Amino acid sequence: MEGRDLALLTDLYELTMMQGYFETGSYKKQVVFDLFYRKNPSGNGYAIAAGLQQAIEYIRNLRFTEDDITYLEGLGLFSADFIDYLRDFRFTGEIYAIPEGTVVFPHEPLMRVKAPIVEAQLVETALLNIINHQSLIATKAARVVWSAQGDPVMEFGLRRAQGPDAGTLGARAAVIGGCCGTSNVLTGKQFGVPVKGTHAHSWVMSFPDELTAFREYARLFPDACLLLVDTYNTLESGVPNAIKVFKEMQAKGIELKNYGIRLDSGDLAYLSKKAKAMLEEAGFADAVISASSDLDENLIASLKLQGAKISLWGVGTKLITSDDCPAFGGVYKLAAEEDENGKFIPKIKLSNNPEKVTNPGIKKVFRIYEKSTGKIKADLIALDDETIDETKPLAIYDSNAKWKNMRLEPGTYRVRELLVPVFIDGKQVYESPATMDIQAYCNQEKASLWDEHLRLNNPHIVPVDLSDKLTQLKTKLIDNMSKR
Amino acid sequence: MEGRDLALLTDLYELTMMQGYFETGSYKKQVVFDLFYRKNPSGNGYAIAAGLQQAIEYIRNLRFTEDDITYLEGLGLFSADFIDYLRDFRFTGEIYAIPEGTVVFPHEPLMRVKAPIVEAQLVETALLNIINHQSLIATKAARVVWSAQGDPVMEFGLRRAQGPDAGTLGARAAVIGGCCGTSNVLTGKQFGVPVKGTHAHSWVMSFPDELTAFREYARLFPDACLLLVDTYNTLESGVPNAIKVFKEMQAKGIELKNYGIRLDSGDLAYLSKKAKAMLEEAGFADAVISASSDLDENLIASLKLQGAKISLWGVGTKLITSDDCPAFGGVYKLAAEEDENGKFIPKIKLSNNPEKVTNPGIKKVFRIYEKSTGKIKADLIALDDETIDETKPLAIYDSNAKWKNMRLEPGTYRVRELLVPVFIDGKQVYESPATMDIQAYCNQEKASLWDEHLRLNNPHIVPVDLSDKLTQLKTKLIDNMSKR
Repeated sequence: MEGRDLALLTDLYELTMMQGYFETGSYKKQVVFDLFYRKNPSGNGYAIAAGLQQAIEYIRNLRFTEDDITYLEGLGLFSADFIDYLRDFRFTGEIYAIPEGTVVFPHEPLMRVKAPIVEAQLVETALLNIINHQSLIATKAARVVWSAQGDPVMEFGLRRAQGPDAGTLGARAAVIGGCCGTSNVLTGKQFGVPVKGTHAHSWVMSFPDELTAFREYARLFPDACLLLVDTYNTLESGVPNAIKVFKEMQAKGIELKNYGIRLDSGDLAYLSKKAKAMLEEAGFADAVISASSDLDENLIASLKLQGAKISLWGVGTKLITSDDCPAFGGVYKLAAEEDENGKFIPKIKLSNNPEKVTNPGIKKVFRIYEKSTGKIKADLIALDDETIDETKPLAIYDSNAKWKNMRLEPGTYRVRELLVPVFIDGKQVYESPATMDIQAYCNQEKASLWDEHLRLNNPHIVPVDLSDKLTQLKTKLIDNMSKR
Repeated sequence: MEGRDLALLTDLYELTMMQGYFETGSYKKQVVFDLFYRKNPSGNGYAIAAGLQQAIEYIRNLRFTEDDITYLEGLGLFSADFIDYLRDFRFTGEIYAIPEGTVVFPHEPLMRVKAPIVEAQLVETALLNIINHQSLIATKAARVVWSAQGDPVMEFGLRRAQGPDAGTLGARAAVIGGCCGTSNVLTGKQFGVPVKGTHAHSWVMSFPDELTAFREYARLFPDACLLLVDTYNTLESGVPNAIKVFKEMQAKGIELKNYGIRLDSGDLAYLSKKAKAMLEEAGFADAVISASSDLDENLIASLKLQGAKISLWGVGTKLITSDDCPAFGGVYKLAAEEDENGKFIPKIKLSNNPEKVTNPGIKKVFRIYEKSTGKIKADLIALDDETIDETKPLAIYDSNAKWKNMRLEPGTYRVRELLVPVFIDGKQVYESPATMDIQAYCNQEKASLWDEHLRLNNPHIVPVDLSDKLTQLKTKLIDNMSKR
């Protein structure tokens, strides 16, 4: 986001509402918005928070250029006073967020914005855009990586991504979610993540024959010689030619490491088993067999079940677009606002759909771990002034099913707060870790889930409870609203 | 794309292959690549080509900055000579493309790149990324707009788009496909398209009550007073309060135009009919009833069938992500290459899947219209040196079903070539029209299809024939390959 003018990356209604607040004189009123989501994508048991670094860059760079101002004036919608106000616009508020790579659950504030209403309103659309996108792809990547059961997974989707950012930031998110690298060179440069790749069919086609193409590739890249074997006929031409070239390399005394083949079409279960047998028989049992053909977590799981001999997975389209669920569904809802005395009044949004009723007030999120295993027992959404006394027993209810409860004895559990300060009084107070460090942290996070939460289908759901105080507040506000 | 350094927006293998061609000395060999797709998205009967303007900007700006060079050197994969070559890299080739907004069909080259292989290879990934994304969204928008049967459709999806570009360029593509405008202000600024919007639930929640919120909004925006009525209770609170405010505006002598309500949740068929009756009874029969709640073309079609009283549609998530089909599937395949004598040799890629066998040679696309109706009869993919003599009868076969053929008599048909020159010798020779002009052209294009091609499900398919000469060439190359 650095160096890009994104002040206008917003829905028009944010600007018309800003002018509304400006004209009514209420624009400096402090409010609190929560950014949260309601449902894990792809039927997953959790999501991976991602995109915070770009959200920070967006906030830090947020100002209206002369170009932006001229455009807005030309729309004929805005008053001269309001336009003048925009000229000096800066974000002056406070943001708390859950760090990238954290395992998160529905209804938890991933981000909490406390700012004058005119500022908090502007940033809604861009923050949702950035966090929704990267959390979606990081979560999808976690699913794909889970299905590969320890095999490395590469992100290969740039050509099918929804535009340059979707390719570049999507690859970043995929790496956070567990991919070992990407084909996207720009992501490699911008975020210091490993870039990988071999060659395309066009390489093979541009030589008189496949064997010559393979020989040339091996000569040029002896240390990373992964040969694409399906241009003409995988088992009758591609694999035999690859074996011939590996033998020639051996004969020349080249140490074979990081070498093998790539399958990009056909029946990957059958072809990989046949290719493995041919490679083994020729003495190349350690050759990598990589595959890349419209893969997703379900296809990888099926190939694993069929005993496919694939040791490196290249996943493109269906990962970079989150094919089965291409949107994350994060929302940004008013939770509290300051009254004339500077006191924050909790706010609630009702809905006929109980899932859509918001949690009022300024909130925090506690994560409760089982000490003996380090695994997550539950999350607890509480009001910001609440604390948990770890010397006392802790009762946890599933907020969706109050009869399901557990009592944790002192000494058996540990508590951590998930939201950390990112901006205070408009100043950035949080530095994003390097992407590969976020990946390492995310791996720990996934390890804090039980196997039953990690599986692809019908996962066990981690209980997310509301504190007694928050539950009482919510009930009271719902009652008040209903009476009106 | 202007001003962005996108030289590294590419898969690593493009660069390793480039170095390969460079080291083998073949890097200046002229080749021809076709960018085409194999299947219309979402079961549609056609696609809308889009993204050419950004593809042009990418090509025009294409150079490696010192930063890029330093990064590539650091990878330890590339020779000093090759890195030196990259320092002065410019695209020097020729590009033909089908203009944006054109109705296109599978297997037609949307873009034809003729350039030294080292250049043609580099641009593959970025061109696919840009064209795939925007063609996808323009096509989805055309479906959504078709289902609205003449009602205006707004693009509202920025917050759920896959990153900033997906939001901004996606909104551009949606407008090309037929949306009357977007909520995305950045798209409005960059591409001169109408921006629209009203207010959010937070506006209503930030006032003591709904009526006050509506009154303030009406006072501030009397000329575009669309009130969101579902914050508390649509029929018992929202619509009555909106009617009260419209009456107050009337009493003040304000001319009511461009006013109405927005429904954002609940049963849109039921609520819109009830709201319409209430508005009519109060004398506001011309009030706009707009709706925006997880809409797509199927839901709009269903609401139309149910007689929903909605006159303006705001479509977000499912349009901006092309929810049911989030990737376009365009590919970039070698079609010809120069031999030592400067003659272009046609190239083919075989596959076990007949759909995946490529069309060899340097090609063009003829579109054949029925003169009496102006409607498309068929497309014909031919070799570049072929012409159609309109004074003679024209026989057209469906290339997927040779027994389905038609004979067009002279005077009854008209022929147009779809590919136009965009770059010649590395110089841009084509100026992109303004986005709204592309939309107007796209509307004409859609009007050149028969109703049976336009419908959402099981559309009639326009025949795309291969010329006799191309068919013979393809057959010969397949035979040669099979013999090897």
